[in-house]
Order: sequence, then C-alpha cells, then structure tokens
Amino acid sequence: MTQELTVQLAGTKREKPDQANLGFGRIFTDHMFMMDYTEGQGWHDARIVPYQPIALDPSAMVFHYGQTVFEGMKAYLTKEGRVFLFRPEKNMERLNRSNERLCIPQIDGDYAIEGLKKLIDIDREWIPTAEGTSLYVRPFIIATEPFLGVAPAKNYTFMIIMSPVGLYYKEGIAPVKILVENDFVRAVKGGTGEAKTGGNYAASLKGQEIASEKNYSQVLWLDGVERKYIEEVGSMNVFFKIDGEVITPELNGSILHGVTRDSVIQLLKHWNIPVAERRISMDEVAEAYRNGKLEEAFGTGTAAIISPIGEFLWNDEKMVLNGGKTGELSKRIYDTITSIQKGAQKDEFGWITEVPVSK
Amino acid sequence: MTQELTVQLAGTKREKPDQANLGFGRIFTDHMFMMDYTEGQGWHDARIVPYQPIALDPSAMVFHYGQTVFEGMKAYLTKEGRVFLFRPEKNMERLNRSNERLCIPQIDGDYAIEGLKKLIDIDREWIPTAEGTSLYVRPFIIATEPFLGVAPAKNYTFMIIMSPVGLYYKEGIAPVKILVENDFVRAVKGGTGEAKTGGNYAASLKGQEIASEKNYSQVLWLDGVERKYIEEVGSMNVFFKIDGEVITPELNGSILHGVTRDSVIQLLKHWNIPVAERRISMDEVAEAYRNGKLEEAFGTGTAAIISPIGEFLWNDEKMVLNGGKTGELSKRIYDTITSIQKGAQKDEFGWITEVPVSK
Ligand SMILES: Cc1ncc(COP(=O)(O)O)c(C=O)c1O
Ligand SMILES: Cc1ncc(COP(=O)(O)O)c(C=O)c1O
Repeated sequence: MTQELTVQLAGTKREKPDQANLGFGRIFTDHMFMMDYTEGQGWHDARIVPYQPIALDPSAMVFHYGQTVFEGMKAYLTKEGRVFLFRPEKNMERLNRSNERLCIPQIDGDYAIEGLKKLIDIDREWIPTAEGTSLYVRPFIIATEPFLGVAPAKNYTFMIIMSPVGLYYKEGIAPVKILVENDFVRAVKGGTGEAKTGGNYAASLKGQEIASEKNYSQVLWLDGVERKYIEEVGSMNVFFKIDGEVITPELNGSILHGVTRDSVIQLLKHWNIPVAERRISMDEVAEAYRNGKLEEAFGTGTAAIISPIGEFLWNDEKMVLNGGKTGELSKRIYDTITSIQKGAQKDEFGWITEVPVSK
Repeated sequence: MTQELTVQLAGTKREKPDQANLGFGRIFTDHMFMMDYTEGQGWHDARIVPYQPIALDPSAMVFHYGQTVFEGMKAYLTKEGRVFLFRPEKNMERLNRSNERLCIPQIDGDYAIEGLKKLIDIDREWIPTAEGTSLYVRPFIIATEPFLGVAPAKNYTFMIIMSPVGLYYKEGIAPVKILVENDFVRAVKGGTGEAKTGGNYAASLKGQEIASEKNYSQVLWLDGVERKYIEEVGSMNVFFKIDGEVITPELNGSILHGVTRDSVIQLLKHWNIPVAERRISMDEVAEAYRNGKLEEAFGTGTAAIISPIGEFLWNDEKMVLNGGKTGELSKRIYDTITSIQKGAQKDEFGWITEVPVSK
C-alpha cells in the first residue's frame, strides 16, 4: 500500500436485516471506505469509517455537471465460510477507463482492492448466507470542488459502500420481457457510453419508464447513429444464440465492457461453442427469429449474472423465445459462473480473489 | 403561492468580496432556497435558510445515476438601484422540460420565481455594482433517495444558490478561438442534449480539455449522427452571419433551447435582419469562409451574453474572422441586450421581471 489506511470502527453495530427480504441496494453495512483527492497532492486520507451521511457544499460540482464514475461487483460467501470476490481487478481497470473519459484522476486499483478487502473483512458478518444472496460492492467517485464552472474539478472523493442483496430470481433463474427502444438513445459513439458514469443511467430512465408501463422489464438499446444495431439490454450486455453460434455486439465505443460479458465469452471458448463479437442488427435477430434460428438470448451483468430473455417486442412484432422458458445454454452458463463465485466449482480461469481474515 | 415559505436568516453575514476579483461561481451569498419532494406528498417545506453544506446518504441517487437538472440566469442592478431578472419564466419552463426528460417531478415555476425574488431581496446587498457584474442564479434539482437501483428516485431536493460574478470580458467584449471537435460528441438525437442535465456537461469535459491544451477556449460540437451539422459552441448556442443572413442551428432535439438564443432571434427580427433557424453544416460554414461570405460568428449564453468568434480551427483549416475582431452585429446585439438587462434601454419585449423590495 502506498498510503496508510486508517480505521475508525462504528461504536454500535446496526441490526442485520432479514435475509428473506434483502431486496437490492437499500440496506448498507456498518462501514465505508473513503479517500480524497486534492489537486497537487493526489489521493490522500484513505480511511474506513462508520457508514454515515456526507456533507457537501451545494455548489459541489457533482450536483451540477455530473462528473461521477462508479463500479459494481459482488462478494460471495462460500459454504466453508470463505469470502470470494469475482474479478475485482477488472472493475478497477474499468473504473480507471471511466476516469480517463470523465477527466477524473486515476486511482491505484491494487490499493483500492486492498482497502476493499479490509472493508469487507470488517463487515464480514454482513455477507448474507442464504442461497443466492451476496454482498453488493459499490465503489464510486464524485467531484466535490465547490465551483460552478464547467471544467474538470480539482477535488474528488472516492468511496466504497456495500449492500447485502437478495436472490435476483426469487423462484430460480427466469426469463424477462424486453422492449426494443426506437425513440430514446442511451449512448452514442464519441459520447460516454463506454464509461460507467451517471449521465448514461440518467439518459436511460425515460425509456425504461415507458417500457415498465407496457409491462416490459428492460429496454433493448439500439445504436444512436443508425438506430439499427444492438447495443445493450437495460444495464446488461446481450448475447444471441443463432443457429448454433453465439453472437454479442462488439465493443464499439458506446457499450460497456461488461465483466460478466468477458467471462461468458471465455467460458464459451473453453467449451468450444462458437462465439462472435460483431455488429448485429435488430433486423438480423428478427430474421433469425422468423426462420426459427434464434435459439436463445440473454443479458449479462453483475446483478443477475445471466438474465434469459423470454420475449422481445419490436415495433409491433412480438418474438417469444424458447416458449418463454430459460434456454439450456443460459442455464449452463448461469450455473457455472455462480458455482465458481460460491466456490462450489473449481476456478480454472483465475477469476476469484479471496478476502483474507485479518490476523 | 401554493405553500408557505419559511425564512431563517443567517446569524452573521459574511464579508462581501472584492468586486474587482469576483471571477465566476466561487463565491456564494448568505442564503439559499430549498424545497423537498417526497413521492405521494409532492414538493414541500419550501424555505430560505443560511447558505450551508447539505448532508446526503452516500447511496443518494444523484451520486450514482446522474439524475439532476439545473438552470442558470442572472439578476442585474440598475443605476437606480432596481433589481432586474432577465426572462426567468423561460428558465423555469426549460427546467420543467429538463425534468420531463429526466423523470423528475414538475415544479411550480411561478412559485419558484416568487421564492427566488424573496431570496434575491434578502441577499440584495450581494448584487455587485461594478460595471458588467451581476448576480448569477443557479436553480438545481438532485435525486436524494438512498437507493442503488436504476430507476427514477422517489425523493428530490430543489435548491437555488447565488453567486456574484464579474465582468465576463475584462477588457470589453472580445473574440474567442474555437476548435471544431471531430472525435467527441456532446449529445445525440434521442439522448439528453435538449435537457440541462449534468451528464451532458460531464460528456463535454474531455473535448474541452483537449481544446484548452491547444489554446482554444471552446469546442464547436458537431451532431452525433453524421458529424457534419453544427450543434453548439461550448455551453452556448451559435450564430453565423453569411452574406447578410444570420443562421443558427434549428432546435433539433439535441441542442439546448437557449434563452439568449431566443432573445437574439427576436431582436434580429425586430431589426428586420434576415434570420434563419435551420440545419447548417461545418462544410457550409467553411465554404462561406473561403468565398469571403462568412461575415461574423458568435456564441450566445447567459454567462457571456454574446461571445464573438475570432477563429475556427477545423481539421487543419484555420479560419480567421473579421481579422480576429468583434463584428459589428455581435457588438450591436451585445450592447442592446446588456442595456435592457441593466435598465439603460427600454424593454420593448417584456423580458424584464423586477425583484420588488420587501415591505
Ligand atoms: C450499462 C451496463 N451494461 C452492462 C453491464 C454489465 O457489466 P458487468 O458484467 O461488468 O456487471 C452493466 C452493469 O454493470 C451496465 O451498467
Ligand atoms: C449547452 C448549453 N447551450 C446553450 C446555452 C445557452 O443558454 P442560455 O442562453 O439560456 O444561457 C447554455 C447555457 O445556459 C448551455 O449550457
């Protein structure tokens, strides 16, 4: 570690929540990690402190110009009581790529992972034990300088907060219904789509709201230029199995480099299942559907790992996949990744980082 | 007023700044306006309180998903000591359009203006008196719900903070150098470009940073689809005078509906100067330049009012306008609008709202 990490423990520990009703992202652990950045001084004052509100000047730039980045990953408890992180170095790499796009100073990813391990170790009791639950980890950076000018800030705060989260699928992995969005655009080449930054999610709310009203759980985003090529599904990357081959949109500058996406591609290659990263249009998907060649489709992301797609609505065309059931491949990938994450299956890929128990 | 406005005055007033060194957006007045939104209850607890930090949970949605909107306008002190606002109803209308796009509940614009008048009245002494100075007013809304899910928040805070600002042009109105941006995109049709929301400004930082390094003060943004048509210049709308006609990009869904833009168009019509709102490409501008027909170009916005453009750099082509001097029309518009704002010229357009002195 390049700088000292101070720890201030909470005087009283809060009651742990009911594991049957964890939900997602509403309950937080007893502690959080923080460090500050000051121009000329770099990142400093790394500390673990009791979870608490933060006070900012109303002119803090984060409130005005959206200069923020964040990450999302999970910690899992194995049957043996060990704690595993899934590819945390990928999240820190991505955080730094997001930083680069948003003009936020780079962080030391290894140092942040050490801080995170320490934080998880302190709040170890918060990791839920019930089947399918985990501890969601949210690192984020906000611009704190009190200044109303449009320019990169001179001060930032990096934080990690953690939330015990429930089983994503209450009754086992189950397919979702997806609305193909024609009006709203999430991101465009030259924009910030590849970065994990607030503005992309703010831009997605309206389309998402309209989809929900129509009883679709997520939106499929098309490219912002031609409105033809598939980008992502909600906050997930997306895969299609067409005539035996698995296809996912290539990393084109406007979609997120998903950690789960990368893991799925590795798995498919390992299994000798043909997989292609390339441009794929909604026309091609619909054509395959009409010809009976669209075998499966699924989203990938940290929250659900694999989210099988049971239906697409595109203009007036409704496409029901697999009779609305979870496909075989979706299930196989889901089982494999979650088994590795929970330590039930050997990690052949070097994906797991263990959180050591402090001496 | 639909709800009561409570006022809590600051115990001690801070020292007023040196008017020669106000800068922009770093000094704030003694008070601020706040009100909160709670789902089911609507906007409530409107209050004027001493300017102070705000405390938020680290999971407050504004830190993660960029659900924010803001406005910018100015209050001016006339020679007679009256206080004028410039078209504040347009800002509140635009705030509500931004709210609509960002899934933020509508505010009562008239009520917000009443609150603002009261706030300005209380902090009246903060309006600087020196030539060319004013009080910058920043209304903004942030999503405060402590929740890590990607969905519109259930809680918001609306605030107005104010900052005395200096003369934009230290030595009189002067032209700026503009770099035409080919790689980065600020906004695209179907995105959030028409809304005044943080993500657009976050997206603009990188291009702006690169322009600054090359000694250009602002970026000219091209459309995100074809990368041909002109959108805006930095945080301003843009106008070109070509062969006697004034042209500005039409409101196409990805550019901001500038209040100054609208005022300039009204003025030009009033003066019987031909003005067109239409698509205009960078090719057309360069062609006009090469033929000696590009007579003037200028940006429009609340901060500078009129920002004459002295030079464009597009790929390797450098276009110097008017010998790098301020054009006649730019100057005439600037003088007229600033004179109306300061009460030195009659307001024939109904642009001025006076802030009354409280009894
Ligand atoms: C826009 C977007 N796309 C894709 C993903 C999936 O990425 P990952 O697999 O790293 O969670 C996420 C979620 O993190 C996301 O927010
Ligand atoms: C992106 C953008 N365009 C244009 C403008 C000009 O708008 P107005 O004239 O209302 O200040 C602004 C500033 O407010 C802006 O931020």
